[in-house]
Amino acid sequence: MSKKTHPKKIYLPEEKLPKTWYNIVADMPNKPLPPLHPATKQPVGPDDLAPLFPVELIMQEVTQERYVDIPEPVREIYKIWRPSPLIRAYELEKALDTPAKIYYKYEGVSPAGSHKPNTAVAQAFYNAREGVKKITTETGAGQWGSALSYATQLFDIELQVFMVKVSYNQKPYRKTMMNIWKGNVVPSPSNLTETGRKILAEDPDNPGSLGIAISEAIEMAVKDPHTKYSLGSVLNHVLLHQTVIGLEAKEQMEMADAYPDVVIGCFGGGSNFAGISFPFLQDKLTRGKDMRVIAVEPDSCPKLTRGEFRYDFGDTIGMTPLIPMYTLGHNFMPPAIHAGGLRYHGAGAIVSQLLNDGIIEASAVPQLESFEAGILFARTEGIIPAPESTHAVTQTIREAVKAREEGKEITILFNLSGHGHIDLGAYEQYLNKEIHNYSVTDDQIAENLKVLDDMGFPKI
Amino acid sequence: MSKKTHPKKIYLPEEKLPKTWYNIVADMPNKPLPPLHPATKQPVGPDDLAPLFPVELIMQEVTQERYVDIPEPVREIYKIWRPSPLIRAYELEKALDTPAKIYYKYEGVSPAGSHKPNTAVAQAFYNAREGVKKITTETGAGQWGSALSYATQLFDIELQVFMVKVSYNQKPYRKTMMNIWKGNVVPSPSNLTETGRKILAEDPDNPGSLGIAISEAIEMAVKDPHTKYSLGSVLNHVLLHQTVIGLEAKEQMEMADAYPDVVIGCFGGGSNFAGISFPFLQDKLTRGKDMRVIAVEPDSCPKLTRGEFRYDFGDTIGMTPLIPMYTLGHNFMPPAIHAGGLRYHGAGAIVSQLLNDGIIEASAVPQLESFEAGILFARTEGIIPAPESTHAVTQTIREAVKAREEGKEITILFNLSGHGHIDLGAYEQYLNKEIHNYSVTDDQIAENLKVLDDMGFPKI
Repeated sequence: MSKKTHPKKIYLPEEKLPKTWYNIVADMPNKPLPPLHPATKQPVGPDDLAPLFPVELIMQEVTQERYVDIPEPVREIYKIWRPSPLIRAYELEKALDTPAKIYYKYEGVSPAGSHKPNTAVAQAFYNAREGVKKITTETGAGQWGSALSYATQLFDIELQVFMVKVSYNQKPYRKTMMNIWKGNVVPSPSNLTETGRKILAEDPDNPGSLGIAISEAIEMAVKDPHTKYSLGSVLNHVLLHQTVIGLEAKEQMEMADAYPDVVIGCFGGGSNFAGISFPFLQDKLTRGKDMRVIAVEPDSCPKLTRGEFRYDFGDTIGMTPLIPMYTLGHNFMPPAIHAGGLRYHGAGAIVSQLLNDGIIEASAVPQLESFEAGILFARTEGIIPAPESTHAVTQTIREAVKAREEGKEITILFNLSGHGHIDLGAYEQYLNKEIHNYSVTDDQIAENLKVLDDMGFPKI
Repeated sequence: MSKKTHPKKIYLPEEKLPKTWYNIVADMPNKPLPPLHPATKQPVGPDDLAPLFPVELIMQEVTQERYVDIPEPVREIYKIWRPSPLIRAYELEKALDTPAKIYYKYEGVSPAGSHKPNTAVAQAFYNAREGVKKITTETGAGQWGSALSYATQLFDIELQVFMVKVSYNQKPYRKTMMNIWKGNVVPSPSNLTETGRKILAEDPDNPGSLGIAISEAIEMAVKDPHTKYSLGSVLNHVLLHQTVIGLEAKEQMEMADAYPDVVIGCFGGGSNFAGISFPFLQDKLTRGKDMRVIAVEPDSCPKLTRGEFRYDFGDTIGMTPLIPMYTLGHNFMPPAIHAGGLRYHGAGAIVSQLLNDGIIEASAVPQLESFEAGILFARTEGIIPAPESTHAVTQTIREAVKAREEGKEITILFNLSGHGHIDLGAYEQYLNKEIHNYSVTDDQIAENLKVLDDMGFPKI
């Protein structure tokens, strides 16, 4: 059905790599609410964050400036794999027999195989410039841990990664990848922290979660004045760095004489979703462009579609400030789905505000449908997507099928946030029919949210 | 040391994808010798090959034409990942402090993650056009098996892959990749063929080899008139298809105002080496260009550096015609190195003739040096190379270091034939110091070659 009027792959020349990131806060009608101190319920200031982050990142966390310069050394490293290609999904369009034009931005070309190095390199750079010698972090499926391993070794920074245990066991190659780039990695919960030891004492088989791993990484960082902490998603400065994706995509769509009616990204903490969508949302917010922007989560971790917009901890133990977020409650333990990077109980402040204001929408996808979409994508477009990214593929297929049924020639853009080469064990289980869908009951969610009521965390 | 005067990545526009492959036979001073029938020692004709290959591929096997058209449907599929990028290794140059300019062509961007789909798609196309419904093949590290799985499913052809057992166990994800693309795969030696059953009866723990796997695949193909066989290297038509790599690279080097003094490819059966080098060799053969062209093999399977140029079987059991090749003897069982794609006892007829005529040279690399090179490459250029490709990286590093010592500003081009995402188990063992070098004694080689004397296989 599709007509090949343009090249399949659209490359932006290297010299057109963006010189600034885009800060959507400047254009939001309702600004994101500030994080609160859990005891006083007062906004936390830059000083409260100083034990965790270098000054420059704290400034970026709160800046209202529309554009933030990308430091030249970071741009030089970006050029190792950026600008990433924008690809027209001619083969997928044909298989779906859809009148929709489908484009995807492919972030799997990076060293770690996902969008994560975009912020990892920036964070490592700012830490190094302020003399930091060691960083701690958490990782779900391992995308973030390997990205930060790659980035920290470039700046001679030591790294300790806490990897969610269920993913550590599912994806042993991720550990190797981190080791190749000099990262140290342990399964979380671990014996390296009080948090980990306490959880293991109560439940030696605890499969871990991003929330627990964050707690461990923060604990280790705050106990050592020479160690900082790094987060791969959720926070404003992380989302800021990822906007390089959408900024490139806008130029590339222009090269293809196209503009998206729908922009789609999978959703864990929000970083790849923000990366692809915020630069397009600028057109919606400032120029009234009509456009749907969809965040896609697994239906087994449905904070956007079934959670509550209120203050909650970013981690499980309660070491972070209270963040205004769509949340399932920080005690929510997501089922052991293979999209490890989407197993997080909350969403960042900016995305939550945008969702609450009706500027973006959300969708939830069952695990089996996501793998089915991943296989179709591999057989048509030739790229095996990461289990996280298959969620964006799934929503894209849904929209393209709807377009066929309605006879609408819409244009869809989605972010293929990473390849699935390290996740083939998950595909093996899918092909062997060894994995299934999970359901989360309303009672489960209500129970976890009630804890927040009991703790007096404000609703918004 | 390096100065960034050009972009790091050089993309050839899609419309400049070559329209023909280059056939080096047309320009060789001494043409490759014909394959012989093992009993009569007379040249085999096209009819002898008809049970194995479609007519068009048999014609390509013997053609003397300088250029062969790439069918338009094949070009359209190529565009899913081609033209592949040419990359300037600025970061590696800096780490080596070398005055050498290093470029690499990166074939890891293909669906299967290596150069193999270049010929897999072409072979599947010609088979489909001649009505073939099923294909058999062998695979070493799994690169070829997954490439052919990807290609055959595009043309609705069923595929049976025999995967060398040692690699099957080392790289379980390769099986999954083949399954995603509908390929059936068994470890070889297998119980599916008489050849396999016989070997297993004598030695149930036989680790397999490419030679054995080829025997199994051919046996299954010749027993069924509706089944053909497909080979991922060695043969002339396979090398022909791979020249798309070097043809693109020539245009990209021109875009970078550069021309290589040294061209390097790793060497198993010769396909990626031929792919990168033959189009440049054309300049050496027809225009007297001064250039070194180096085939790099593992020192544990040293057919080019320590084998003999003579007729031998292409497989272990003796189902193929006799091929004029540098060989270690078809009974040579290569040690279980991780570069599974390089564990082959012989070399193709064209490459062997070029080596014998002094037009190209060969080099051998120990396993540990190759992994060390792979790690340095991953830490600098950000790409984790396939264990096979690390052999090309190793030789490149040797040449770049020599250039530094001699103060020469040479230009090196090598083919990074694939990424190592599916081979991370090998890197894990290297990092854990669990792998080592292997030595092959002169006696071992002499013993295997004596078998050829006893069988009356001609020396050249």
